[in-house]
Amino acid sequence: MSYENTVIKERLASLRSVMEREGIDFYMMPTSDFHNSEYSADFFKVREYFCGFDGSNGTLVVSKDFAGMWTDGRYFIQAENQMKGTGVELFKMMNPGVPTIEEYLFANMKEGQCLGFDGRVISTSIGESLEKKLSAKKVTLKIDKDLAEEVWTDRPALPLHDMYVLSDELCGKSFAQKLSEVRDAMKKFGTGAYLLSKLDDICWLTNLRGNDVECNPVALAYAYITMDKFSLFVQEGEVTSEVKEYCDKVGIELRDYHSVMEFVGDSSFDSDVLYDKRNTNFLTFKTLLKKAQEGKVALKNEKDPTELMKAQKNKTEIANIREVYLKDSAKLTEFIYWVKKNVGKIPMTEYSAAMKLDSMRAELPGYIELSFPTISAYNANAAMAHYEATEDNCAEVKAEGMLLVDSGATYMGGTTDVTRTIVVGAISDEIKRHYTATVAGMLSLANATFLEGCTGRNVDILARGPLWDMGIDYNHGTGHGIGYILNVHEGPQNIRWRFAPGANEAPLLEGMIVSDEPGVYIQDSHGIRIENILEVVTDKENEYGKFLKFAHLTYAPIDLEAIDTKYMKPEHVKLLNEYHKMVYDRVAPLIEDAEVKAWLKEATREVQ
Amino acid sequence: MSYENTVIKERLASLRSVMEREGIDFYMMPTSDFHNSEYSADFFKVREYFCGFDGSNGTLVVSKDFAGMWTDGRYFIQAENQMKGTGVELFKMMNPGVPTIEEYLFANMKEGQCLGFDGRVISTSIGESLEKKLSAKKVTLKIDKDLAEEVWTDRPALPLHDMYVLSDELCGKSFAQKLSEVRDAMKKFGTGAYLLSKLDDICWLTNLRGNDVECNPVALAYAYITMDKFSLFVQEGEVTSEVKEYCDKVGIELRDYHSVMEFVGDSSFDSDVLYDKRNTNFLTFKTLLKKAQEGKVALKNEKDPTELMKAQKNKTEIANIREVYLKDSAKLTEFIYWVKKNVGKIPMTEYSAAMKLDSMRAELPGYIELSFPTISAYNANAAMAHYEATEDNCAEVKAEGMLLVDSGATYMGGTTDVTRTIVVGAISDEIKRHYTATVAGMLSLANATFLEGCTGRNVDILARGPLWDMGIDYNHGTGHGIGYILNVHEGPQNIRWRFAPGANEAPLLEGMIVSDEPGVYIQDSHGIRIENILEVVTDKENEYGKFLKFAHLTYAPIDLEAIDTKYMKPEHVKLLNEYHKMVYDRVAPLIEDAEVKAWLKEATREVQ
Repeated sequence: MSYENTVIKERLASLRSVMEREGIDFYMMPTSDFHNSEYSADFFKVREYFCGFDGSNGTLVVSKDFAGMWTDGRYFIQAENQMKGTGVELFKMMNPGVPTIEEYLFANMKEGQCLGFDGRVISTSIGESLEKKLSAKKVTLKIDKDLAEEVWTDRPALPLHDMYVLSDELCGKSFAQKLSEVRDAMKKFGTGAYLLSKLDDICWLTNLRGNDVECNPVALAYAYITMDKFSLFVQEGEVTSEVKEYCDKVGIELRDYHSVMEFVGDSSFDSDVLYDKRNTNFLTFKTLLKKAQEGKVALKNEKDPTELMKAQKNKTEIANIREVYLKDSAKLTEFIYWVKKNVGKIPMTEYSAAMKLDSMRAELPGYIELSFPTISAYNANAAMAHYEATEDNCAEVKAEGMLLVDSGATYMGGTTDVTRTIVVGAISDEIKRHYTATVAGMLSLANATFLEGCTGRNVDILARGPLWDMGIDYNHGTGHGIGYILNVHEGPQNIRWRFAPGANEAPLLEGMIVSDEPGVYIQDSHGIRIENILEVVTDKENEYGKFLKFAHLTYAPIDLEAIDTKYMKPEHVKLLNEYHKMVYDRVAPLIEDAEVKAWLKEATREVQ
Repeated sequence: MSYENTVIKERLASLRSVMEREGIDFYMMPTSDFHNSEYSADFFKVREYFCGFDGSNGTLVVSKDFAGMWTDGRYFIQAENQMKGTGVELFKMMNPGVPTIEEYLFANMKEGQCLGFDGRVISTSIGESLEKKLSAKKVTLKIDKDLAEEVWTDRPALPLHDMYVLSDELCGKSFAQKLSEVRDAMKKFGTGAYLLSKLDDICWLTNLRGNDVECNPVALAYAYITMDKFSLFVQEGEVTSEVKEYCDKVGIELRDYHSVMEFVGDSSFDSDVLYDKRNTNFLTFKTLLKKAQEGKVALKNEKDPTELMKAQKNKTEIANIREVYLKDSAKLTEFIYWVKKNVGKIPMTEYSAAMKLDSMRAELPGYIELSFPTISAYNANAAMAHYEATEDNCAEVKAEGMLLVDSGATYMGGTTDVTRTIVVGAISDEIKRHYTATVAGMLSLANATFLEGCTGRNVDILARGPLWDMGIDYNHGTGHGIGYILNVHEGPQNIRWRFAPGANEAPLLEGMIVSDEPGVYIQDSHGIRIENILEVVTDKENEYGKFLKFAHLTYAPIDLEAIDTKYMKPEHVKLLNEYHKMVYDRVAPLIEDAEVKAWLKEATREVQ
């Protein structure tokens, strides 16, 4: 007899009875918080509660006699295992013949039926698309109920952590200055009101920080901005006396986080309202829209103007970031030395190595938290795009092959990110060829000079070129923006060779921070990624325009044991030697241990 | 007393009296034929007739008491001179404070007035934009009258030259095969009818050629395509018995060119009609629109599907193109030798040098015509983007500096384009630095490997990089597509680093031909451009996708007298030597003169 997961089946039965009472025929549960954050807190893990699958991406759809869960290729095996005996059907996204959720609903919902979901965890674009498609079948939407509320009795609470204030000195710009720039942008768009839903943008604007999202130093919040008022919706329990005092002083009106929908629903707007469809959840959008229509004003969907302001770091931010990256690079250097010295001699797993690095970073002054969960992947594990070693499930690191470590932290002074692939023993000639080309690509991009107006698409080929030349590609972007004491992934800039139609393709501008991370991933064999973080600086301005270039922020040795210069153009050898000289000159003074320093000298030696 | 141009004034007076009779308050005369061709025949030079200015770009607007002519920076001085004493005001386009034509009309036309123009010489996009803007002032448009018709009594006739047939063997694909592919595209768009206005697309599709546009081997024509009929509108006088016989055989219904508007106006459409807004003139569009609306069918604005089919050359075309480029390269090589040998010894001007090259090309078998007027520009003249030497106005070429020659021809087997900048005497070190970087850029781009899906924007930086590295840019695209026994400029692909929003950014695909022409232009000093033509070929296909690369079609020596390898990366020196070896190996066998062959050996020697 086959195994039956009665726990999940009982939960689904309870959900179905609530659905019936509410007149909801299909209920959809995606993976998101109210702000489309990169990580969702336990409170939001409704899909996991009702089907058992705990991967980072998945949407559960339930009707009276059906339950289906959609996830992507990373999770097919895991989802099958975790949902065994639940009766929930697995839909393998992107596989041939597998319908999308929208297609499934369109085919299976009957005319006049009702689709329910919590409109706060669905983006406006997905919500609008569903609404449009299903309107042809006269399906109604019910989006103001979170049905889990009553079924999931032992649900974890919404994250509730103290907020804190960053000084104007640390931020380089006061809230008042930033607000004035935001209001200028609102005027430019012809809007007198602005609802901002994006957590890191709100933190950047207010110079406040929080701790409600894993690895992102942000607080759950909304901001509503008019020409004479700034209202911040946060949980009362997060407002310390320091935060309260600061808000009073700078003119931030504090309102309860939970009252935002009521506020929007009760407001009457006397001017057009600015919002960003990408960052506003569907319930907020629909509530706004209704009120706007009543007041005969329009909603203006524009890119949050805060996004670009936040991305172009000011002088203070840049100075602090440079310093933080040097210290972080020195720690990483010490860690690389530790791995190489100890591998094969002490017990070492992917997980224990990551813990070691995390604890070394935590010693640095101003350390706040990791900027993302450290990726530590040994040999073939490194070929898996989203591999995550856990204490219970991780490989032993032996004195052969390579260990890929992608890691970073947020400090009072900046947020870091860096990847090194560390040689821990014998490697093949093929690996050296791949490693050398990856390094050549990383250094080529970092060496680019380009006219202002270029986007990541213009320069991406410099990183991919050495790999493309040998018929290899990596199936991810080359670079992403990085926040200042904020999220490790931020827009609007990024470096890719192709963009989805209509995607945000922003020019690279002075003061932006961007990663440069080519890689090679050979299934069941090895994975290589080398990631430096770059700062966009001005080269010169003349009759042709403004020439920009990159400056390295990361200064950590690149493993010469995996470099064979016979696979490198002379130009790239030169770049590598120049980079290594800078690494030694800048990082050695930060390293106290003479043994490590001597090793670094050797690790950054000139190669021919 | 100032000079009065009574000829122009009398012409304008006659025009104004016709305008008054027709109830037209403002009359606009741009520079175009009915098909937005690159060159306009004398018949279309209405603007020149009414104001005296004969540059390649200009629009004249006339009202009862005003006449203004808009042109761009290339022509400010020339226009001022040529319009002296005419009373026509010069509007310097893009200069601060100078209104666009649309802005001028909007500001100066009175409510209810009438704007007239020949709707056949205005593109649909310009027409629609004017219509929209001026509708706010209740201005009406009269677009079905060419007022010059009655005033310009000695007007040249519309071009009328024999058409001819290319064999299926030469084209690699029959009309029937091409038509079947076009009909498949029509089905894909859901359209049962298709009006094609673009001359080179019509010629490509029918395997016919003509001689109605300077340097473009095309006939004035429209094609109207349904699922069971193909109608070709051409001037009866152009249809030779050979063409007639061919058309009868392959099922092309011949109709009179001048009846096309009547045909469209009388047709009743029973399915949606495909057209391309970029290539359809405003009168045709309005006539189509009216009939479509009557028949309750829609006009579908799509990119002409013929454009992409024409751009991806078939195997026969590619084979012929390769051969033609070799022969053309050998001729250019002989010309370079002739220049270098004779400069300072025989009288030589920019113009006479161009004539020499043109006559050498005309000796080649299958020569049809130049693919564009040869650009021959000496020293500082080469820094001017649109410099054109004429017999009466050209510089003497002396034994110092450089001569830039950009030239090409159409042969029975392909259309060529190539630029070389030839050293004719002493040059400065700065010029060598610029020249060397230009060559490095050209060779770098030609050496690219890239994944299918890349557009010209992805690879442009490879050509510009060496110049950007030294803070120099060129203010033009890096590359354009080229036709097969057709126009030297064709889409959809091109290589640029930025595109206007909404511009056509087409992927580079196997079989496409594209130019690679970086340059340096230093005002009042020198101009350098090196242009090779490249073919897109498949490198390999594997799990990452299809990798493409370029193969040179042009094999002519690059002047080593202007190369200083100390300004080059070792990689670029290697590319240069590899290229020059190919030049010698492929071109020397085509050169009979032993002296030239010996010189070529030296001119393509390996450099260190």
